[in-house]
Amino acid sequence: MGMLRSYLAGGWHTGGGEGRPVHDAVTGELVATVSSAGLDLAGALRHARQTGGPALRQLTFHQRAALLKALAQHLREHRERLYAVSARTGATPLDSKVDVDGGLGVLLTYASKGRRELPNDTFYVDGPVEPLSKGGSFVGQHLYCPRPGVSVQVNAFNFPVWGPLEKLAPALLAGVPSLIKPATPTSFLTAELVELIVGSGILPEGSVQFLAGGVGDLFDHLSEQDSVAFTGSAATAATLRQHPAIVRNAVRFTAEADSLNVSVLGPDATPGTPEFDLFVKALVTEMTVKAGQKCTAIRRALVPAQHLDAVAEATSARLARITVGNPAAEGVRMGPLASQEQRDEVRRSLKALAGAGRIVFGDPDQVAVTDADADRGAFISPILLVADADRAEPHEVEAFGPVSTLLPYNGTAAEAVELAARGRGSLAGSVVTADPAFARDVVLGAAPWHGRLLVLNAADAAESTGHGSPLPALLHGGPGRAGGGEELGGIHGVLHHMQRTAVQADPDTLAAITGRWVRGAARRVTDVHPFRLHLEELRPGDTIVAGPRRVTQEDVERFAEFTGDTFYAHMDAEAAAANPLFGERVAHGYLVVSLAAGLFVDPDPGPVLANFGVDDLRFLSPVKFGDELTVTLTCKQLTPRDGAGYGEVRWDADVTRQDGASVARYDVLTLVAKLAS
Amino acid sequence: MGMLRSYLAGGWHTGGGEGRPVHDAVTGELVATVSSAGLDLAGALRHARQTGGPALRQLTFHQRAALLKALAQHLREHRERLYAVSARTGATPLDSKVDVDGGLGVLLTYASKGRRELPNDTFYVDGPVEPLSKGGSFVGQHLYCPRPGVSVQVNAFNFPVWGPLEKLAPALLAGVPSLIKPATPTSFLTAELVELIVGSGILPEGSVQFLAGGVGDLFDHLSEQDSVAFTGSAATAATLRQHPAIVRNAVRFTAEADSLNVSVLGPDATPGTPEFDLFVKALVTEMTVKAGQKCTAIRRALVPAQHLDAVAEATSARLARITVGNPAAEGVRMGPLASQEQRDEVRRSLKALAGAGRIVFGDPDQVAVTDADADRGAFISPILLVADADRAEPHEVEAFGPVSTLLPYNGTAAEAVELAARGRGSLAGSVVTADPAFARDVVLGAAPWHGRLLVLNAADAAESTGHGSPLPALLHGGPGRAGGGEELGGIHGVLHHMQRTAVQADPDTLAAITGRWVRGAARRVTDVHPFRLHLEELRPGDTIVAGPRRVTQEDVERFAEFTGDTFYAHMDAEAAAANPLFGERVAHGYLVVSLAAGLFVDPDPGPVLANFGVDDLRFLSPVKFGDELTVTLTCKQLTPRDGAGYGEVRWDADVTRQDGASVARYDVLTLVAKLAS
Repeated sequence: MGMLRSYLAGGWHTGGGEGRPVHDAVTGELVATVSSAGLDLAGALRHARQTGGPALRQLTFHQRAALLKALAQHLREHRERLYAVSARTGATPLDSKVDVDGGLGVLLTYASKGRRELPNDTFYVDGPVEPLSKGGSFVGQHLYCPRPGVSVQVNAFNFPVWGPLEKLAPALLAGVPSLIKPATPTSFLTAELVELIVGSGILPEGSVQFLAGGVGDLFDHLSEQDSVAFTGSAATAATLRQHPAIVRNAVRFTAEADSLNVSVLGPDATPGTPEFDLFVKALVTEMTVKAGQKCTAIRRALVPAQHLDAVAEATSARLARITVGNPAAEGVRMGPLASQEQRDEVRRSLKALAGAGRIVFGDPDQVAVTDADADRGAFISPILLVADADRAEPHEVEAFGPVSTLLPYNGTAAEAVELAARGRGSLAGSVVTADPAFARDVVLGAAPWHGRLLVLNAADAAESTGHGSPLPALLHGGPGRAGGGEELGGIHGVLHHMQRTAVQADPDTLAAITGRWVRGAARRVTDVHPFRLHLEELRPGDTIVAGPRRVTQEDVERFAEFTGDTFYAHMDAEAAAANPLFGERVAHGYLVVSLAAGLFVDPDPGPVLANFGVDDLRFLSPVKFGDELTVTLTCKQLTPRDGAGYGEVRWDADVTRQDGASVARYDVLTLVAKLAS
Repeated sequence: MGMLRSYLAGGWHTGGGEGRPVHDAVTGELVATVSSAGLDLAGALRHARQTGGPALRQLTFHQRAALLKALAQHLREHRERLYAVSARTGATPLDSKVDVDGGLGVLLTYASKGRRELPNDTFYVDGPVEPLSKGGSFVGQHLYCPRPGVSVQVNAFNFPVWGPLEKLAPALLAGVPSLIKPATPTSFLTAELVELIVGSGILPEGSVQFLAGGVGDLFDHLSEQDSVAFTGSAATAATLRQHPAIVRNAVRFTAEADSLNVSVLGPDATPGTPEFDLFVKALVTEMTVKAGQKCTAIRRALVPAQHLDAVAEATSARLARITVGNPAAEGVRMGPLASQEQRDEVRRSLKALAGAGRIVFGDPDQVAVTDADADRGAFISPILLVADADRAEPHEVEAFGPVSTLLPYNGTAAEAVELAARGRGSLAGSVVTADPAFARDVVLGAAPWHGRLLVLNAADAAESTGHGSPLPALLHGGPGRAGGGEELGGIHGVLHHMQRTAVQADPDTLAAITGRWVRGAARRVTDVHPFRLHLEELRPGDTIVAGPRRVTQEDVERFAEFTGDTFYAHMDAEAAAANPLFGERVAHGYLVVSLAAGLFVDPDPGPVLANFGVDDLRFLSPVKFGDELTVTLTCKQLTPRDGAGYGEVRWDADVTRQDGASVARYDVLTLVAKLAS
């Protein structure tokens, strides 16, 4: 590949100097050289702010979601190219699938969540309107707007495809451009990914840039609206966090650092139970997938003391069946580490760990390999240790490879929680148990120390994605040693790239700002029934007032007889009088909303296709015999669906009594057709 | 007062050495000395972690809310003591009211929000269950659990009562103990507050501690679960943010720094309009309340160029009517600054500002005062400047006193937004306009640079709380220069003190962990109808299955005639056939839920007092003539109400057709009586 190129400011550029060599993890051959010397990084940030950001911000969430979907489809068509390059990083076909298909899965999940959970608008309205005054003329509302900066993404070497995509997806959906800076050892694969992205022409220019090589002076140019999402070692995170520009400008900095993740075997999971086997199997999987180079891998396996030997034996037996070697060769289950430097690092950490316990499987200096040279490639054997849980090393020293340590504990949830916390903050943890009470105690106790906790047992094992897999819908990131970051987690991950702002105004002005009708804002009673207006003709505030309809004792009895709802509060005067809330017979709530619908409906065929739901229905006052009901139905929010012949319309329904008191309030959800085009 | 005492580890302690003198802002008399020398700050953190934290964490949100309410009531009974001491900080009676009553208001708002918006439980379940697998045996759920650390609160001198209370309230509600470290110049007032809090005996020991004097080695002992909430200068924030323990342990650090907040006069608000007067009045208020020592005060007033002179004139005229002097004296509207040092600082900043423009009202070195000595007290005149908006100083130099600068702009929203952003991040901004389109453009444009934005006009002025007042329900904190922090904002401010954790499990185990039934978990069909069970007898999962009930054409026509809902999809075969969603006549959605209620209801008097609402109703499939409906109603969540004879019960309702397909799903909300005690 020669010198890897960076994609900056709309063009491909090559760094100066000789560059740093990057080797094939399997064969040791030179793959590429990498340098960022002389590249204009201030210009790249400027390009993102002036070109990519504005282009993304003028799109709605739904339009951005459509871009993510199109991008995923394009990458899927070309994934063989990514697989081919991935093999040179030491990845087995399964490892590549986790990295490549996992990354595409993140894009597709965010595309889907963007369409379903976000409005077809350029910003996000958060939470309910906050009443700020007695008279209702002064109200508050939180908004999230895209930050006009750059998301700088510094990635780790272990997931060269998933890593950038899991950061790109939420940033892009938020309307924020990305600058991707991969770790050098596997940057040639990320370069291939970015070539596919840029070549597709799907994303607006400036929304994705790529920097091969060191960060140079990039951080010096960060400003208030930029953010940094770092994945890598805790030590590097600490250094970057203190960069003067980050500190001075309160740049949002999040770190996702590898951590000493724990898996706890429950005391119920004795040898012979399905959970015992699940524990052993999960442990071996976490040790060997990606050759254990996962920040979420199990480093500490807590085992009830009486089962320690059984677990060591079963795990060793399973590890013995793992074939190490060239990922391209038939039957190979584990490839090499990403580089010789990584292997040196793992061996160093193993010295410290072995000093605190003993190795029960594997030899750090020797491994039989299939179809490869064990020394030219960065191969190492899986290593299982046993150590005393009181020692410091198992809780502090991480060997970032196929390494895990068994630690005996007394089988109580309290001790498991205490030992889990000694990792001082983890990305992921798991507890393998069929006992819900034990699961509850471990999860609630260990939760403050974890970003994610898995309960594994026979009930979910078949469908579980396992201990180590971050999922787009769930938070990825943990406190303390894990860096304190927050990635993914569905829409939370999107809002991370936006600024939350409280807006205070009168209801009319607030409605003008958000484009949604809010209680207290003007209603516009239209000449035609609003159900006769198409989506493009309707406006928030369009209203119909209908009624009154008198509710009689006969109505209530008829409804009770018809539906079978003969609850005493409707039917039995004496019993109703004893009810602390009513004091006398009252109409059914369902009768009230049914009558309201009868009042506001427009019976003839028209643009309203269906009422598909009701939200937040509250019965506020009882309706007594003789009360007269009026309903006020106001168009509240329009959500056009791109590519569909209709959109969703949310209506505010307010059913009032003759004295003006509201008896029921709710949102009515309808599908409304667009004008025929 | 002599040497101020600190309340640490359950006792009152006095720091060593001579201490730093603190003077009365009005008279210059010595009020107290302050020192933290020799105090055991590591022990204080330990005390909070080992005593206060565990005591708070075993309470539910509702119980913690009750503590906040009781505390507010206690402090209100003793507020005269606080007012008396407040006067010595230079506060006028109005200033004291803002500080003291404002602080009580935060406690009461959080008490109320805790009861209404949080569950009666020790942790918080966030968002919906996330489906993670096709078969439904593997699901996800986010929880927020209290962090087992300490909230270290470093406060500014300007709000010695509100400052600590606005941080204490959300932390305590979260279940996290507080260590309050006030700014030295007004720490004697915070000491008085803490004496009242401790003396009340309302809060568990260890949940509030108080450190008078410098932070000493406090930060060295911070660990992963602690957080720091700093209020003060951007420079100090930058220093603290880099403390090795904070960086090493990813301690949550938030800063709320004073910022160069903007107020924009709209082009519609010409002299003579109500908005013109509101703008001038708000500007004078922000300049003079607390002698302008508010981090949210207006420092930059953007005025359409053609109205600059008119604004300068009107503002000067109003400022001329402000009487400066001893806050205790009749008619005094503005007191002194908090200290002589503050006055020196303001005068230094004024030099830089005056160099970039001109002073149009006031003299930095001279002021007429009532009932005080202008030099012994820290008095200064309100100062209004005019400057060119292109100059750097007005956007960068803050004089933290009764100082503001008028800046002309061209009257467009685009230029107002651009100039607002030159403050590089603000806590609060305002736009004074009666034009909703102008308000919208300024708010959406300036939002990424602001924590809070107020639109002020004739419609909300009477009820508005003004530009400078943070409100407990709304976010307080802004990006960039404002520190990037987040305080208040309702429940958001509580969750800040908790760890978000994704839990993955099978539905039964998840239900055991959260104490809530989730779809897919086991249902328990009880011997008795669950509506016959009292709150203490019901358990999540208790279920009744009722039906089937056949829906006939006659039912639909009868319901249409009864309610008046003759929508064509129910009544007109030809038109219904043309509807893209139905294809034939279908039953009313309201009929379906009414019949379902008729099926599941238990008619006789019993523990179920009322159905007070319905949430998240979705009609999933049409119901056609001849379809048979069955309803499955499952107890989902119990919320006992402390001090009431009942609680809320949320039921999952699932209405299915003869082929098993769900036709409607929703939550039914009921009030259920407790067992008679």
